[in-house]
Formats: sequence, C-alpha cells, structure tokens
Amino acid sequence: MRDVTKDNITDVFMGYLGEDVNPRLREVMGSLVRHLHGFARDVNLTHEEWNTGIAFLERAGEISDKERHEFVLLSDVLGLSSLVDMLHNLPEGTSSSVLGPFHITGSPPLRVGGDMRKGFDAPVLLVEGIVKNPDGAPIPGATLDIWQTAPNGLYSSQDPDQETYSFHGLQTVGADGRYAFTTVRPVEYTVPSDGPVGDILRACGRHPWRPSHLHFIAEAEGYKTLVTEVFPEDDPYLDQDTVFGVREDLVMRYVQMPAGTFPEKGFDLSGKVPDAYLKVAFDLTLVLA
Amino acid sequence: MRDVTKDNITDVFMGYLGEDVNPRLREVMGSLVRHLHGFARDVNLTHEEWNTGIAFLERAGEISDKERHEFVLLSDVLGLSSLVDMLHNLPEGTSSSVLGPFHITGSPPLRVGGDMRKGFDAPVLLVEGIVKNPDGAPIPGATLDIWQTAPNGLYSSQDPDQETYSFHGLQTVGADGRYAFTTVRPVEYTVPSDGPVGDILRACGRHPWRPSHLHFIAEAEGYKTLVTEVFPEDDPYLDQDTVFGVREDLVMRYVQMPAGTFPEKGFDLSGKVPDAYLKVAFDLTLVLA
Repeated sequence: MRDVTKDNITDVFMGYLGEDVNPRLREVMGSLVRHLHGFARDVNLTHEEWNTGIAFLERAGEISDKERHEFVLLSDVLGLSSLVDMLHNLPEGTSSSVLGPFHITGSPPLRVGGDMRKGFDAPVLLVEGIVKNPDGAPIPGATLDIWQTAPNGLYSSQDPDQETYSFHGLQTVGADGRYAFTTVRPVEYTVPSDGPVGDILRACGRHPWRPSHLHFIAEAEGYKTLVTEVFPEDDPYLDQDTVFGVREDLVMRYVQMPAGTFPEKGFDLSGKVPDAYLKVAFDLTLVLA
Repeated sequence: MRDVTKDNITDVFMGYLGEDVNPRLREVMGSLVRHLHGFARDVNLTHEEWNTGIAFLERAGEISDKERHEFVLLSDVLGLSSLVDMLHNLPEGTSSSVLGPFHITGSPPLRVGGDMRKGFDAPVLLVEGIVKNPDGAPIPGATLDIWQTAPNGLYSSQDPDQETYSFHGLQTVGADGRYAFTTVRPVEYTVPSDGPVGDILRACGRHPWRPSHLHFIAEAEGYKTLVTEVFPEDDPYLDQDTVFGVREDLVMRYVQMPAGTFPEKGFDLSGKVPDAYLKVAFDLTLVLA
C-alpha cells in the first residue's frame, strides 16, 4: 500500500496474508500483530525504546545455547508460560505448572519407597500419594518423573559437584496407584539473573526467587500428561514466585513427624531414620486424554 | 500469589513491579504484558504453539550477528518498525521511513553534482532537490547521507564484488539548500529470506520484495534528523512493500529525459551523457528539533 498510515497498518498487514494461509496461522498471526501494534500505539513507543527492545532480543539470543534458554525464562518472568499452562488446565485434574528449564530426560528408575536423599546431610522428607483419576480410582502403571534441587539450591544440571541424576528419579506405581519416596526438603532458589532477563527484573524492582518445590511429570496410558510442582505452605516466596507457578491446589503442608515414627517397612530408609522427619502427602489426579 | 489464575495473572504481574520503578518503564512493561497476555487469551495459545514461538526466537538469535539483524527484520515484516516511524512522524515535514539493515557509516563526501554511478553499465539517473524547512526556506549546510542498491539489487555490504562505499555518498548542501547527484536507478530487491523470518513470510503466503528506493538521512543543526526513502511511482511492488515503508509523499515520478538534454555544467557527468536519462526531483522538508 502506498498510503500506509499508523491507523491502517494493521489492516494492511492482514491484507498481505495469502488467501491459502492455514486458518489457525491467520488467527494467531493476526492477533499477535494486532496486539503488537496496539502496544506500540498505546504507549506511543519511541525509536529509542524500540532500539532497546531489539538490543534486548539480540542479547537474549547471544546468551542462549542448548543449556541456557533465555527466551523461555523471559516468557516465564512475564507470566506467559504460566498463562498458557492455565489456559489448558482442566479443573477436574491436578493443576499443571511450569516445566522450568532444568528438566533432563533419562532419570534412573526409583522403586516405590526408594530414596533420592542418598548421602546428603539434611533432614529426611517422606513424600507419598496416589495417582488417580477424577473419580478417585487409582491409575495402575502410571509413571512419575521426579526432580528437585539439592540442599545447596542447585539442580544437578547446574552443579558440577552432583552426579548427573542426583535428585532425579522415575517411579512406576503399582495396582494401588501409590507412589512414595524419601528425599530432602527442596530449597527456594533464584532463576538465572546474570543475563538480559535479570536486567529486566532489576529494572522492574523484582527479585529472581522461586519458592521451593518438587517437580513431577505424571504419565499414564490414556491420560493427559501432567507437568506440575508441589510447594510447601510455609515457603517465604509462595506469594511472589517470580515465574507465577504457584496454584492453590499445589500448596501442601510439610508435616513435622516425631522421632521414632518413620515407617518400619516399605522404604529404603525403613529402620534407618530414628530422628524427626518431614512428611508431605500429595495426590495427583490425571484426566483422560 | 498462591492463587494465580488465568484471569488475574496480568494484575499479579503489575503487583510484582517495585514501587520505585521508573514510571515510563511501568507504563511500557505494563502495556507489553497486557497485550502479551491478551494475545495468549484471545487465541487460546497452546503449548505447542508456544514452543514454536520459543524455537523461532532461538533460531532468530542463532542466525543474528553484527551484520545480520533478524530481530530488526522481524519487526520490519510485522509492520512494527514502520508503525514506530509513523507514530513520531511530523505532518509538516517529509515522512520518515525505515532505515533498513544495510546502512553503513563513514560514507565518502559527494560534492553537489557528484556521481555515484561510476563505471556501472546502466542508464544515468539524475536526482536533485532542495533541503528546506516547513516555510520553504532552504537549510544551508544540511547533510544528506545517501545509499542505494547497485544494478544487481545488492547493497555494497552484501556484495563482495563492490567496493565498501559503492553507491554511498555524504553530500553537504550550500546556501541554496540544493542537493544533486547522478547515479543509476535502484532496483527492487528481497529482504533476507533464508532464516526464520523467511519461514514466516512463506507460511503467511507473503513475498519478500521491497520496491526500489533511494535512502536518505538528512541532518541539519537545530532540525530533527530525517531517515527516509524515495520510491518511483511505477515500481511493481509499490503497493506491497514487505516492510510497509512506502508513504504517499515519498512516491516520485522518474521522468524520462530525451538525449542531449543533460545539464551542460554543474555535474561530474556534464558533457559526458549524450543519451536519454532519467530524472527525479525530491525536496526534503526538515522540522525543527
């Protein structure tokens, strides 16, 4: 169009789309560009601000590699990742939450009652629950991919001092749908803040902290895969998770259990935990695919 | 917030901003996130589409370097660059247009009447006009940074066969505000389409062509710098510039001049152009800074 104006450019863009364009692509691109143009108009975006935005994207590209996902982090701290999660959440199942950038595949099998704490010097946390369907019936054979931080606040993929699959396990539940394992209490930690996303957080007066959590990916044949996290109700960052991952049904109480009450059998640590320990019960409800 | 929902997450984001945040940053980030969330809600963005978007940004980062600016190109083909231009355009002056990714600094001086065509085998184009203020008075001492494609459709920075400053010149006008030079007619060309932005264009059924144009950056003390382009009215891509750069007042007629009419003096090529040639007159109106 030779008479493109600030008022008609969004329509001109739509007119440029080919007639045979996939209808969903037309819908998504159209909405994206309407909002992008709307943003620029609403704030009367200046050339200098546009330059700042371009330089930000270029820096995010530079710092990214196979292990560092700055664009995912950007989506996380702007709430987009959590919003996409929530848009597709099904109310009859356990809420999903962000996968986060630290998941690795190939975790070793962890039997029901198995131990992830190994030699780490921190109080035992016993985690257990049922993987069930919305009617409350157990889902035999469901698998849980479980991962968390070590007591130093680092995932194994961030920490050269940990083994590859430290605090990672893949558990398959039996006929009763029950999972159980021992570990340590995960700790709150910061998202990477040494890159351009960290600069945004600082400029916005925001901190980079996430409340502590256990990650789960629950899978079972015929059911929708659930990516979620469990948070302790007394975490100081529960009300200000920098990636907006907390959902009400994912907040659980870690119960302080007295010495001498650890189960006598069924756990790798049975008979080896004379002291007080923590316990959290968390059921996972999967919905049909 | 432990009860973040798809309906309140935008407000939660705003609540995360520190009290001392720069007010303009609060306005820009707030609008950006409202539109980002609005986009995701409007189209019910899926995880798969989110993944496609993240992978796109990562690929754009990978292909970018000091010479390849894929994020600028993305902004260009989505119409954002032109919209920002038009938002700050002043109606009493010549319209601005996109700078484009091919501008280089340090162009050699080009005297009034100088020649940029050099040995290239293409018809002469004579370009001239006045650099003036909105009252029509000339602006003595204004400088014009001029660049364009060679007859092969490539800028010198894209073409190892051209000298660094081929088809580049920096002209300072005298007391009459007049600029003038000879060159060849620039040709239409495609934006780089071998990267992720090219994939978007193809998926959207769009072509990568821009109409031919001459680039100008006009500067003068006390005046707002003008970045603009001039387009010939008979260009086949005038109504579908893939970066939305055409403005009505930037479209000019290239007049076919008969043999023997080339000016007898004042040009490097005076007395050396016996044949027919093209001529375009284009005045540049700058507004006070």
